Amino acid sequence: MAGTDKSRSDEAADYLAGKGTPPIVILVNPQLGENIGACARAMLNFGLTEMRIVNPRDGWPNEKALSASSGAVEVIENAKLFDTVEEAVGDLNHVYATTARQRELIKPILFPGAAAAEIKALDQASNGAAKTGVMFGRERWGLENEEISLADSIITYPVNPAFSSLNLGQAVLLFAYEWFAGGDERFVVEMPETRAGRAEKKDLINLFGHLEEALTTSGFLYPPPKVPGMVRNLRAIFTRADLMHHEVLTLRGVISSLVRSGTANHQRRPNKDD
Amino acid sequence: MAGTDKSRSDEAADYLAGKGTPPIVILVNPQLGENIGACARAMLNFGLTEMRIVNPRDGWPNEKALSASSGAVEVIENAKLFDTVEEAVGDLNHVYATTARQRELIKPILFPGAAAAEIKALDQASNGAAKTGVMFGRERWGLENEEISLADSIITYPVNPAFSSLNLGQAVLLFAYEWFAGGDERFVVEMPETRAGRAEKKDLINLFGHLEEALTTSGFLYPPPKVPGMVRNLRAIFTRADLMHHEVLTLRGVISSLVRSGTANHQRRPNKDD
Repeated sequence: MAGTDKSRSDEAADYLAGKGTPPIVILVNPQLGENIGACARAMLNFGLTEMRIVNPRDGWPNEKALSASSGAVEVIENAKLFDTVEEAVGDLNHVYATTARQRELIKPILFPGAAAAEIKALDQASNGAAKTGVMFGRERWGLENEEISLADSIITYPVNPAFSSLNLGQAVLLFAYEWFAGGDERFVVEMPETRAGRAEKKDLINLFGHLEEALTTSGFLYPPPKVPGMVRNLRAIFTRADLMHHEVLTLRGVISSLVRSGTANHQRRPNKDD
Repeated sequence: MAGTDKSRSDEAADYLAGKGTPPIVILVNPQLGENIGACARAMLNFGLTEMRIVNPRDGWPNEKALSASSGAVEVIENAKLFDTVEEAVGDLNHVYATTARQRELIKPILFPGAAAAEIKALDQASNGAAKTGVMFGRERWGLENEEISLADSIITYPVNPAFSSLNLGQAVLLFAYEWFAGGDERFVVEMPETRAGRAEKKDLINLFGHLEEALTTSGFLYPPPKVPGMVRNLRAIFTRADLMHHEVLTLRGVISSLVRSGTANHQRRPNKDD
């Protein structure tokens, strides 16, 4: 239904707009079409839509890039081609260079999360006018020093020092994720809406009464000096379970059913003798 | 130079040790070896070393997994195989299930950053004794509801609602990155000390078995088409209660006692007739 689709995609667009102006991803001299496609997919997963490609080794357009994008066709088809890094970053106000190794460059070095936060701050401070971009180097040896010198800051990734190599698609994915989900949102905890049906305390108290009466009859709550502690422990379990109203009813059904079960078992035995 | 290598790898080991006990990655019924390899690489990039695989579609060992791991050979070679999810999580204290879609399950839903912070808090509170694991489903349709019901919490990813599909390697990468690079100091969770005695999943699974058998005998689990949903709801209650080992024993005592109780009640009645 077109109407439904439209409203859902409007919703998605509003949600994305709330993230601010997305930074531009610049792939410098990428080698494999598959990797370009993986970058496009990772970008679109996290709301980045503008890709610039400097001098791709295997030419452009590239069928492998399209198929590896897993449907992020709009990113591939709208990608802009440049001959040099200078041209690719010419209209940008703030540029980051991603590097794996330590470099002797006097520039700020940021983790992706910090860079993402800075990009959002620049966007807000400029009311959306600031254009930012992040450069990613060729698969084999990254960015050249001359290319890095065009950047305002370096982005480097916190990785296991004993196994530190990230591929191009992974590097773009982690940056894009930080931009999209960075800040407080990555720690947001959601609870299912159904929490609205949480049991009232009086339901819980009645459940406790039912269980404790059954366990007194069954002889479980014994000997008397230990009973208060046992009751406290049982109540703690069911309090911690943060029960819904319908779950309290289920548990009361469970107690009744188990008690009847023994009775029924016993009744069946005499029946055999009939 | 061997001496240099050794000290560098010692340094890496110390650095990783500072991150705490790494969670275990559990791949449930993965289909492609390439994806298993990509997961191993992503894990080792961020200091996760233990992979468990439940029933891989193409058997094991898998040459494609090894080559796609890009050198994360230790993860692939030490991967442990299991026939069922129950066995794969049996010795774990705290389990997360990753899901893409909204599910009607009454469990906490966390973004990867919050889950990573919680894992670190659990590790610290238990002095490294708590074993945690994260389940990732099959490429095509993720985890089944029965598999998810074994988890304590759900992990879901903040993604572009208009292009939300992450592949298996990407999902593992983002979780591993959050565990490694997440700012635990930004999100400190206090955990009660007693959490050190948390039940293992196999205790819980045995508790479920005991309860469900008793409720089948008693006729509570009826009619058959409704049983899977009823079982899921019951399991959700006791999973959410975040039980201690001794509490599982208490609940098993409760079940046995209630079942015996009915029998005893019934026995008393005939006695009156004597």
